[in-house]
Amino acid sequence: MIYTIKEDFIQNDLDEFSTWAESLELEYKIVTLKNKYYLVTTSSSKIDITKYNNYDLIFNDQVSISTEYQLSTRKFQKSNTIITISEDILFGGNNTVMMAGPCAVESEKQVMDTAEFLVKNFDIKVFRAGAFKPRTSPYSFQGLEKEGIRLLEKVRKEFDMKIITEVKDEGHLEAVADVADIIQIGTKSMYLFNMLAHCGKIDKPILLKRGFMATLKEFLQAADFIMANGNPNVILCERGIRTFEPLTRFSLDICSAALLKEISHLPIVLDPSHAMGRSNQVPLVAQAAAALEIDGLLIETHPNPLEAKSDKEQALSFDQFSLMMSKVKNICNSVNRKLV
Amino acid sequence: MIYTIKEDFIQNDLDEFSTWAESLELEYKIVTLKNKYYLVTTSSSKIDITKYNNYDLIFNDQVSISTEYQLSTRKFQKSNTIITISEDILFGGNNTVMMAGPCAVESEKQVMDTAEFLVKNFDIKVFRAGAFKPRTSPYSFQGLEKEGIRLLEKVRKEFDMKIITEVKDEGHLEAVADVADIIQIGTKSMYLFNMLAHCGKIDKPILLKRGFMATLKEFLQAADFIMANGNPNVILCERGIRTFEPLTRFSLDICSAALLKEISHLPIVLDPSHAMGRSNQVPLVAQAAAALEIDGLLIETHPNPLEAKSDKEQALSFDQFSLMMSKVKNICNSVNRKLV
Amino acid sequence: MIYTIKEDFIQNDLDEFSTWAESLELEYKIVTLKNKYYLVTTSSSKIDITKYNNYDLIFNDQVSISTEYQLSTRKFQKSNTIITISEDILFGGNNTVMMAGPCAVESEKQVMDTAEFLVKNFDIKVFRAGAFKPRTSPYSFQGLEKEGIRLLEKVRKEFDMKIITEVKDEGHLEAVADVADIIQIGTKSMYLFNMLAHCGKIDKPILLKRGFMATLKEFLQAADFIMANGNPNVILCERGIRTFEPLTRFSLDICSAALLKEISHLPIVLDPSHAMGRSNQVPLVAQAAAALEIDGLLIETHPNPLEAKSDKEQALSFDQFSLMMSKVKNICNSVNRKLV
Amino acid sequence: MIYTIKEDFIQNDLDEFSTWAESLELEYKIVTLKNKYYLVTTSSSKIDITKYNNYDLIFNDQVSISTEYQLSTRKFQKSNTIITISEDILFGGNNTVMMAGPCAVESEKQVMDTAEFLVKNFDIKVFRAGAFKPRTSPYSFQGLEKEGIRLLEKVRKEFDMKIITEVKDEGHLEAVADVADIIQIGTKSMYLFNMLAHCGKIDKPILLKRGFMATLKEFLQAADFIMANGNPNVILCERGIRTFEPLTRFSLDICSAALLKEISHLPIVLDPSHAMGRSNQVPLVAQAAAALEIDGLLIETHPNPLEAKSDKEQALSFDQFSLMMSKVKNICNSVNRKLV
Repeated sequence: MIYTIKEDFIQNDLDEFSTWAESLELEYKIVTLKNKYYLVTTSSSKIDITKYNNYDLIFNDQVSISTEYQLSTRKFQKSNTIITISEDILFGGNNTVMMAGPCAVESEKQVMDTAEFLVKNFDIKVFRAGAFKPRTSPYSFQGLEKEGIRLLEKVRKEFDMKIITEVKDEGHLEAVADVADIIQIGTKSMYLFNMLAHCGKIDKPILLKRGFMATLKEFLQAADFIMANGNPNVILCERGIRTFEPLTRFSLDICSAALLKEISHLPIVLDPSHAMGRSNQVPLVAQAAAALEIDGLLIETHPNPLEAKSDKEQALSFDQFSLMMSKVKNICNSVNRKLV
Repeated sequence: MIYTIKEDFIQNDLDEFSTWAESLELEYKIVTLKNKYYLVTTSSSKIDITKYNNYDLIFNDQVSISTEYQLSTRKFQKSNTIITISEDILFGGNNTVMMAGPCAVESEKQVMDTAEFLVKNFDIKVFRAGAFKPRTSPYSFQGLEKEGIRLLEKVRKEFDMKIITEVKDEGHLEAVADVADIIQIGTKSMYLFNMLAHCGKIDKPILLKRGFMATLKEFLQAADFIMANGNPNVILCERGIRTFEPLTRFSLDICSAALLKEISHLPIVLDPSHAMGRSNQVPLVAQAAAALEIDGLLIETHPNPLEAKSDKEQALSFDQFSLMMSKVKNICNSVNRKLV
Repeated sequence: MIYTIKEDFIQNDLDEFSTWAESLELEYKIVTLKNKYYLVTTSSSKIDITKYNNYDLIFNDQVSISTEYQLSTRKFQKSNTIITISEDILFGGNNTVMMAGPCAVESEKQVMDTAEFLVKNFDIKVFRAGAFKPRTSPYSFQGLEKEGIRLLEKVRKEFDMKIITEVKDEGHLEAVADVADIIQIGTKSMYLFNMLAHCGKIDKPILLKRGFMATLKEFLQAADFIMANGNPNVILCERGIRTFEPLTRFSLDICSAALLKEISHLPIVLDPSHAMGRSNQVPLVAQAAAALEIDGLLIETHPNPLEAKSDKEQALSFDQFSLMMSKVKNICNSVNRKLV
Repeated sequence: MIYTIKEDFIQNDLDEFSTWAESLELEYKIVTLKNKYYLVTTSSSKIDITKYNNYDLIFNDQVSISTEYQLSTRKFQKSNTIITISEDILFGGNNTVMMAGPCAVESEKQVMDTAEFLVKNFDIKVFRAGAFKPRTSPYSFQGLEKEGIRLLEKVRKEFDMKIITEVKDEGHLEAVADVADIIQIGTKSMYLFNMLAHCGKIDKPILLKRGFMATLKEFLQAADFIMANGNPNVILCERGIRTFEPLTRFSLDICSAALLKEISHLPIVLDPSHAMGRSNQVPLVAQAAAALEIDGLLIETHPNPLEAKSDKEQALSFDQFSLMMSKVKNICNSVNRKLV
């Protein structure tokens, strides 16, 4: 349940209300979003707040939401959330934003060559690459970390690109937020509720990847976690779920992506590279994603995929990337979207 | 392993070979496909047939295939299998064939109205509807059965449409084969090996739906079952797999579909209706499917979805279908395919 | 909804009722179980039969069941269904029945040696082995078929064992029913609704294996299919479900097995061999299964597992089987069950 | 690959080696475990360290391990790792350690009552309860946090129990380590590689829960992460995996648990409460777990389950717990294990 708090509410009234609510063991959170105030309770709460004797002093109206995700739904906000990264990059309108780059920052040459390729040939505006890499093996390359951040900063300045990069854990959040225009929360971090809460207090858009075994309910609850802490700019990213099929890395759940467009007002982007896990098929999957009328695509490309230090099976060569771009562009046009 | 048998082989030589092979407990099958003869063994067979002293009398060459599916792979046949239903309907080239109609045949009016709508407005050439319905509940409508077959026959004659309809078990195979231009094997029948074998002996194209629980390996082995019994005309249909996500009926596994295009020479079609299970999102999913450059689409539509006797949640109204068609057509054009 | 029909109902009254019901498009089935008559409708049926003006002439009372499985639930029958195979073998009481033998009948020596081993050392009373094998590869051994049935008949006579064997499809049902004391429906056949219906008309207990990707709802609906056609003697078998884990063949879903004991009155047995798929761990899994207080176990054992023609990875050697038996017996004792 | 470093190695030699290794871009880690030194590379590393010209100066021998998990395997250490919590509590021998208590610390009365019940009636030695709760909803109770830690400290002192409690993220690690005798890493944190690394540097046993979406490979890699940072005392906990079945909360993967006993030397415990998610069936599942000859059980119990602030569906009442204990004890005895 979401209760809209009056804009001119008096703090004292709210404090009194809180005393009352806590005496009833109400589970709730006061949320500030775009300068408006809300009180949100769990959807299954049995306490009828409208019975509070000074209810009218504090609240305007209430939105009854029966699901366990609330702020991220169209019941809370009918129209699309539009997130503007720059004048010509926006999520939630009719752009499909191409975000491309290597899996990990490996060297100056690698990122600069890739950025140059993307900008010169396709005028791509958002560069993706990880400086902190969450790797399942303790013996593997864990990312260039701070040096990686510095190189992303260089890409940003030299090519005037926007940067999306992943935060692996809370300890790096500040360092990442310094350089990133969009902060990415990876699939393995989707349940990190404290980090989600921190991201809610940051003034940067957050691209939240669905946990590869998270239900849509849990995915939207994670989005709620960020929003409930004050940040309305959440981009949902479907990146493949784990299924019983061993021949593909994951299965890109386009049925869920299609459903998200109906139930959530947040922008939605897809990540064909991680879903597919095999470069040969990434372009076809990207085509399908583009036809879903989504707000963006994340694609891994590398100057020399065979020598990539992570995810080398799925990175497109520059040739593969170029072929994909022309097809994806045509598809975007055919559904009246602009590929930027 | 596939061994190509010489066209002018002498039966006596083959019989002698068989005696030898069986003495070694070789597991094999003699396959006739498009008037050519092959001997196929399991991929893991350790018996070296080339050691047979009269090997050269019988065999031309061998194809070493390490997977457990063989005849359906591009190792056996590089170029696409093209299946011609009529002059203007073919699978495996650059057509995307729209196959539309209700889930089940319910009444004469229902099928005739639907067929008329499809033909008059969109010149759709293949009508889909089930006469025998595999229903999980013993207390539910099980299909009109023989009367349903009769009505499909009527659609066929009156509208000059081709018919695709499902065979539920072997007992109905003959009745279905009489009216169907394409025989559909449903997702719950994919492991019915005896029925697959029977379909291998029929001179009609078989649309084989992937079991919603089947790996790609098992899916292609099922295709092999049909081909190994003599029928080269198998159409693979991806229709969604079961995952942990409860909000969608199934997850349309587009990563697998993309991979199938690489590893198999057989045509591939997608079934957005059963995968999604909710009519509102079926058009978007159909768009994504079309962008995958697939050979066909199966879409459920019904004159009055709310009153459908099965799958009513996923059937498109005629209005929804019409909107979908224009988008899907544009997408097909954008990837240089013709929607027929 | 289940409506109990009066024992002395008059057929004419029922016919009149049927006319009324069909005019309302009621989906229902008249069921005879243990000489009692029931009318069963889908659980979601909106037609209120009690409104029929001669309701009291025909019906005694009604059981309102909100799930889509009905006859198999404790709402329909509170007490356990007890299935008596012979004086000393019963399912549903406090026996845990060991059913052991090879995956497939391969030769006379193989089955006779195995049966002798089982009887002489452990007085095992039920022999399991398949004559018709559902194999995913068309090039593999498909079972000895009729010759296999003959060999099972021999085991039955010579060792006075009861036989459980699988029916692969309807065509073999009669041949299998001739020799089997318990007819097994395999995991890949659970959705074969016509075969389930036929098994409902046979006077032999049916061991129904859960489809490896079937929900409990679908599993119990399949049991309902058999019961709705007249056969009350269904044994549920949990044999492992397909998950994302590649290192085990399947995952034995003991949470579901535990839940089945609460919601269904039917006996429940477990199949550790197929779930685990690796002989080394089968005994441990069998121990866990025995501790669940289940009604029976299916275990694969073979005189020479390495040379088994199917499922060789999971068959226990006689030594492994012997070690397992003593542990499983102790566990059965510790939960007050008798291993027979 | 694991290379054992000589006990009397000279640091200078190792530094020289490192320079050589890094010039080849070798991915490796120097590991100290129980005062021995190892160099571990990724299993797929193609660099042959034995070719280093001073190899014999530094290394004793090498263990070639082809899986991506290494330190946690029996290839690295044949015999069981035994973790001694106190004189009478050990994991890895023939004890099955019962760890019981409520899901979350809610109040002083709640934890003290529960602890008293457990100690007085069953002499249970390890108390489980969470102070920091990872909750999917931002509007729900998130645990008493520091106050919860204080209450656990009180249980510890008053009842002389050992404490196992969960660390939700790195920020709380120190606070948790102060009071916990065993630190629990929850299922949603299994991929938190930085936290795993920190736990590797702590001198407390770590109970690592398998991510409900994690393969055994990833699970053991996570254990490797802890061990590779210096902590050999890792207890593996199987707590249920997510599958397609909606009626149970998770599926307890006993096939994987059985397999872990073969491939890993680390102790293994099971958590029937979280797997099952319904209190009625938890005792049965606990029985099955005990029969698997595992090293411990985690069971949730609460003085008044209906009023529990989290996981109320799965907490056992004291009566349910008592009944379970007698059965589980019998089963432990029957497999020659001591329930402590």
